[in-house]
Amino acid sequence: MLVGDITALARVLSLVEQGGPNSNAAGALVYPHGGAAYTVGITGAPGAGKSTLTDRLIGLGRADGHRIAVLAIDPSSPYSGGAILGDRVRMTDHFLDPGVFIRSMATRGHLGGLALAAPAAVRVLDAAGFPWVLLETVGVGQVEVEIAGAADTTVVVVNPGWGDSVQANKAGLLEIADIFVINKADRNGAEEARRDLEVMLELSGIAASAWRPPILKTVAATGEGSQELWHTIAAHRAFISGGPDGGALARRRAKRVADEIREIVARRLEERALGLCAGPQFEALRADVLARRIDPHAAAEVILGGLDGLDGD
Amino acid sequence: MLVGDITALARVLSLVEQGGPNSNAAGALVYPHGGAAYTVGITGAPGAGKSTLTDRLIGLGRADGHRIAVLAIDPSSPYSGGAILGDRVRMTDHFLDPGVFIRSMATRGHLGGLALAAPAAVRVLDAAGFPWVLLETVGVGQVEVEIAGAADTTVVVVNPGWGDSVQANKAGLLEIADIFVINKADRNGAEEARRDLEVMLELSGIAASAWRPPILKTVAATGEGSQELWHTIAAHRAFISGGPDGGALARRRAKRVADEIREIVARRLEERALGLCAGPQFEALRADVLARRIDPHAAAEVILGGLDGLDGD
Repeated sequence: MLVGDITALARVLSLVEQGGPNSNAAGALVYPHGGAAYTVGITGAPGAGKSTLTDRLIGLGRADGHRIAVLAIDPSSPYSGGAILGDRVRMTDHFLDPGVFIRSMATRGHLGGLALAAPAAVRVLDAAGFPWVLLETVGVGQVEVEIAGAADTTVVVVNPGWGDSVQANKAGLLEIADIFVINKADRNGAEEARRDLEVMLELSGIAASAWRPPILKTVAATGEGSQELWHTIAAHRAFISGGPDGGALARRRAKRVADEIREIVARRLEERALGLCAGPQFEALRADVLARRIDPHAAAEVILGGLDGLDGD
Repeated sequence: MLVGDITALARVLSLVEQGGPNSNAAGALVYPHGGAAYTVGITGAPGAGKSTLTDRLIGLGRADGHRIAVLAIDPSSPYSGGAILGDRVRMTDHFLDPGVFIRSMATRGHLGGLALAAPAAVRVLDAAGFPWVLLETVGVGQVEVEIAGAADTTVVVVNPGWGDSVQANKAGLLEIADIFVINKADRNGAEEARRDLEVMLELSGIAASAWRPPILKTVAATGEGSQELWHTIAAHRAFISGGPDGGALARRRAKRVADEIREIVARRLEERALGLCAGPQFEALRADVLARRIDPHAAAEVILGGLDGLDGD
C-alpha cells in the first residue's frame, strides 16, 4: 500500500473499517507514514449536488497535478467497501484515472462506528500518499455533520429553497461551515438563500480576525463556479495555516485528536459496561437488589469495582 | 421520615435528587424499608390534562382510604425541590390533606440525571410508607417517556386531535402504554382518536394472552370517566400481579432494576472517561499522537490502562 498498490490499499481500508483489535493494529502500522494530506469535508442534504461538485473538484485538482482520494460516506446505505453509492456512479469521468481513488463507506450496523471508522480510513489514505482527501457525507444528520466537520476545510452545500431540508440541523451546519456553496444557483431563490446565510452568519457573531465563511454560487452540472470553489478552498487552507505555531489548522487538528481519543475511550467503556452488566455475577446482584439486600447504586459500585480489577483487554 | 415526618421526607428527597455519594448513601439507608408501593406513571403532551386527571385519581384513592404521593417531573422547568410547577397549582384540593404528598422535580442541568433521580425519589416515597406513588411527567420526550414507562402501570394521556402533538414519539408512547386515556373527550374528534389508537394497537400485534391496553375516555375537568380509570388501573395491577412467580409485575420490576444498574454503571464510566481525558497525562498523549509517535487507538489504550489502576471512587 505504501508503494502505491491500490489493491493493497483497498484491503487495508476494509480492515480498518471493521473496527476491533486487528483494525487498530493496521491503523497503528500506517499512522507514522501519514501527515501530509489535507482533508476537505463536503456535506449537505441529499440531492444538493455534492457528488457532482466533488467530481468537479477532482477534475480541478487533477489539472493542478495532485492525486486525490474521495471517501464517500453514506450512513443510510447498506453498501460499503467500495460498492457504488447511489450517485457515485456519476464519477465515471475519473474511473480510469490512477491518480484518483474513490471509496464508499456505509454504516456497519451502528452509526457511531462510522464516526470512528471515517478518521481511521482518512489516515490510511493519508499514509498511502494522497495529498488531498475529500470526505463527502450524504445527509445532514448529526453523525454526517460530525464527520464532515472533522476536516481541515468544511464545505456545506445547500440549494435555493434549502431551509426546510436542513431545518433540523441548521445550527450544526453553521457551526462547521468554512465555505458555503449554493449549488443549483441557476434556480429561483438563489439570492434569497444567500441572504438567509448572510443573516445567519451575522447573528452568529464571528470575530473580526476570524475566517468569515464565504458564500459561493455554483452550478455543478455545468461546472459554473467550481473553479472559484477550488480557489476558495486553497484560500481557506492558506488562512488557517498561517501564524507562528501553525495557526488555526494546528489547533483544529489538535482538538480533533483530543475529541477522537475521548470518543474511542467512551466507546470502549460503553462496551465494558455492557459486558459487565450481564452474566451470573450480574444476575446475583440483581437478585440482591430485588430482595432489598442492597440498593441499585451499591450494586453498580460492586460492578465498577470488578472493572478496576480487569485487564485492559 | 420513616415515622411519618413530612419535613424529614422533603429533606431526604432533596438529598436524593442531588446525586453523588451522600445521595447514594441516603438512598441505601431507606431502600430496605420500601417494597410495598405501587407506582403509576402518567404521561402525555403538555396541556393534555394530566395534572387534572392526577388530581381526580388522588381524590379516588383517598376515598378508598389510601395515602398517595405524587412525583411531578418536568425536565423543561427550572423549578425543583417542591416548587410549584405550571399547573401544579390546580392540586390545591388536596393541599391540606396530610395523606397526600406532592413533590415536583425538574432538571438539574442535565436530563440524564432525572432518569436516575426519579427512581431514587420513588424509592424514598415507597420507604416513607405511601402505598401509591403517581409519577406524572410533562411532555413526551424520550426521557419523560422513559421515566413514566418505568412504572408498574403506565397511563398515556392524549386528546382528540392528538396525533400531531406527539408525532415524534408515537412509537415510544405505544410501547409503554398499559392504559390509554383520551382526555377532553367531550371535544370533537374523540372517536377518531380512539380509532387511531385501535389501529395502532392492532398493528403492534399484541399476543392474545397479554394485556391489551384499554382505551378510556375522560373529561378530567368534570371528573367524567376518572372512576373507570381508577378501576382500570386496579384491573391492570391485578392482571400483572397474577401467576405463581409474581407474574408480569415481578418480571417488569426485575427488568427495571437491571436497566437502572446498567444506566448507573454507564453514567459512572462516562464520568470517569471525562476525568481521564483531561490533565497533563492526556495532553502528553495528545502531543504524542500529533507527533505520530502513537496513533489515537493506542493513546486510548494507554488511558484505559490507567482506568484499570484507579480505585473505584
